[in-house]
Amino acid sequence: MKVEAIIRAGGRIKLIEQTKLPEQLSYLEARDYHEVIAAIKRLDVRGAPAIGIAAAYALAMAAEQAGELSLRVIDTVGAEIKAARPTAVNLAWAVDRVVDRARRENPSGRDDLIRLLWSEADAIHNEDRELCDRIGRYGAAMINPGDGILTHCNAGALATGGIGTALAVIYVAQEQGKRPRVFADETRPLLQGARLTAWELMQAGVDVTLICDNMAATVLRQGRVQHVIVGADRIARNGDFANKIGTYPLAVMAREHGVPFYVAAPYSTFDDAIASGDEIPIEERSAEEVSHGFGRTTAPDGVKVFNPAFDVTPGELVNCYITDKGLRQGGRGGGK
Amino acid sequence: MKVEAIIRAGGRIKLIEQTKLPEQLSYLEARDYHEVIAAIKRLDVRGAPAIGIAAAYALAMAAEQAGELSLRVIDTVGAEIKAARPTAVNLAWAVDRVVDRARRENPSGRDDLIRLLWSEADAIHNEDRELCDRIGRYGAAMINPGDGILTHCNAGALATGGIGTALAVIYVAQEQGKRPRVFADETRPLLQGARLTAWELMQAGVDVTLICDNMAATVLRQGRVQHVIVGADRIARNGDFANKIGTYPLAVMAREHGVPFYVAAPYSTFDDAIASGDEIPIEERSAEEVSHGFGRTTAPDGVKVFNPAFDVTPGELVNCYITDKGLRQGGRGGGK
Repeated sequence: MKVEAIIRAGGRIKLIEQTKLPEQLSYLEARDYHEVIAAIKRLDVRGAPAIGIAAAYALAMAAEQAGELSLRVIDTVGAEIKAARPTAVNLAWAVDRVVDRARRENPSGRDDLIRLLWSEADAIHNEDRELCDRIGRYGAAMINPGDGILTHCNAGALATGGIGTALAVIYVAQEQGKRPRVFADETRPLLQGARLTAWELMQAGVDVTLICDNMAATVLRQGRVQHVIVGADRIARNGDFANKIGTYPLAVMAREHGVPFYVAAPYSTFDDAIASGDEIPIEERSAEEVSHGFGRTTAPDGVKVFNPAFDVTPGELVNCYITDKGLRQGGRGGGK
Repeated sequence: MKVEAIIRAGGRIKLIEQTKLPEQLSYLEARDYHEVIAAIKRLDVRGAPAIGIAAAYALAMAAEQAGELSLRVIDTVGAEIKAARPTAVNLAWAVDRVVDRARRENPSGRDDLIRLLWSEADAIHNEDRELCDRIGRYGAAMINPGDGILTHCNAGALATGGIGTALAVIYVAQEQGKRPRVFADETRPLLQGARLTAWELMQAGVDVTLICDNMAATVLRQGRVQHVIVGADRIARNGDFANKIGTYPLAVMAREHGVPFYVAAPYSTFDDAIASGDEIPIEERSAEEVSHGFGRTTAPDGVKVFNPAFDVTPGELVNCYITDKGLRQGGRGGGK
């Protein structure tokens, strides 16, 4: 079974409650757009593409349930949805895209307007699904039967409307009968690798082994990994990219052991406004994520903590970027 | 306040209950040797030197409390103590040393025998204390005021009879008024860095910042670290050494950023019977340490886990070994 983070069922959507993973797989059947907003705020939906898709559907649901429907109502609800996570770029992008189409076509009847909103939300979802498939196919062409693949964090089905980005490569390779053997970094502090990546790969019957982040070097050294594949949050013009903390040392260790290092991401992740990684601001998050991670105090009271959420990996450590438009060579060159 | 893991008070010893750290500092006042054995088994005493010292004291306590005392009784009790953690080399070494001295001098009176056992246990404790001090002084000579120091796991007072090995360098630098700024890797899976190192440095008023293991590369890259100092479990003839998992990638990242990398360890850690790190067996530990670490299930039921307890760092990544007999140059050369 391959996981789907968001499923549309008529005038409702179903969302995997990701905060309950891996202990419990349950779907929230959202009956109105307020429930979708709440799910986004609770991080039950996470991953930029998935948040955008959920937000677009929420707007269509809101229109359907509105007493009096007009472009102004759609604007107001759109702003409310965008405020759910104000820094999530995809959320604003998706809402704006749906609102803009409604304004452009401005259908006269209520039913036509509602239909149009659902169709634009579906389009966003479908485009993301296809984009994931394309990334998966381009990447899987580089994978040989039985190859070991190391990944970090969760760039998978749970984060997108399709089969993910880094994990798309693994899913397509698995479909092709190549049976990759995956090592998933647990990804401290929030353990997305342990809680989400290991879980969704197991659901799909992929051979996955969980390791602590500091064990990746040993696995590389033992020759058990032929490819390292990660996602990206933002890629600068020179190829430097930001991704979950821990990606940068992984790229150095991959080079140290002559193992190719790939970044799987939609073409839209390339931000041509940014010359290099130096211009990417790194968000610092709360000390509690490190000191009180999982229901237990694991550090002294009042200890100082440095908790950067991302690091920046130089483009010269990347062999290639696997995008929906094909492979793009990185500074380390080569690829396969 | 500097922490002491083991304190002798007359015919008893007091042990910090390390499993209760960092939430609670409590001492177990062991009234008989059975309580010491239980503490060793519960991992309330940990760290090779500290276990050896506690074991030697336990033997003296057992003799004092024995109904009839003879060399045979001491042999029997010694074997019982050694079985507490059969793979702990220092435990067997310390017990054998006390038993051998008793056998060699073979005092006629009961009181003389007991006095001799306590005095040999004290000698082991004192030697370890002095050895730590010497490591600290040799190492601290390389530290400049305000330097950033990164360390991994716990090679501190809690693991020894004195001020530790890697942490000894920090304590002595602090005493010299150099105010080092320390970054402590939390050290997954068992979090010795978060629970023990951060805690004991805070007790001593040292400026310490806790990070996840995968954040060390970022701290190095930001130029906030001038020295990386770790302990060692075993050092081969060619300088390769085994230490807590996560040490090897740290050594690679230190070289990548031109930051010196030191190994602080007593001279006895050099194992001349071993030519290189390839001969050091790596213990694998239980999956639960990774998947159920924080009092909560953090990975899917039944997930495969690879959990090596140690990794081996090539000698060529070491600038120098800080020992109780002085500095010994490593394969990366130079040092300061």
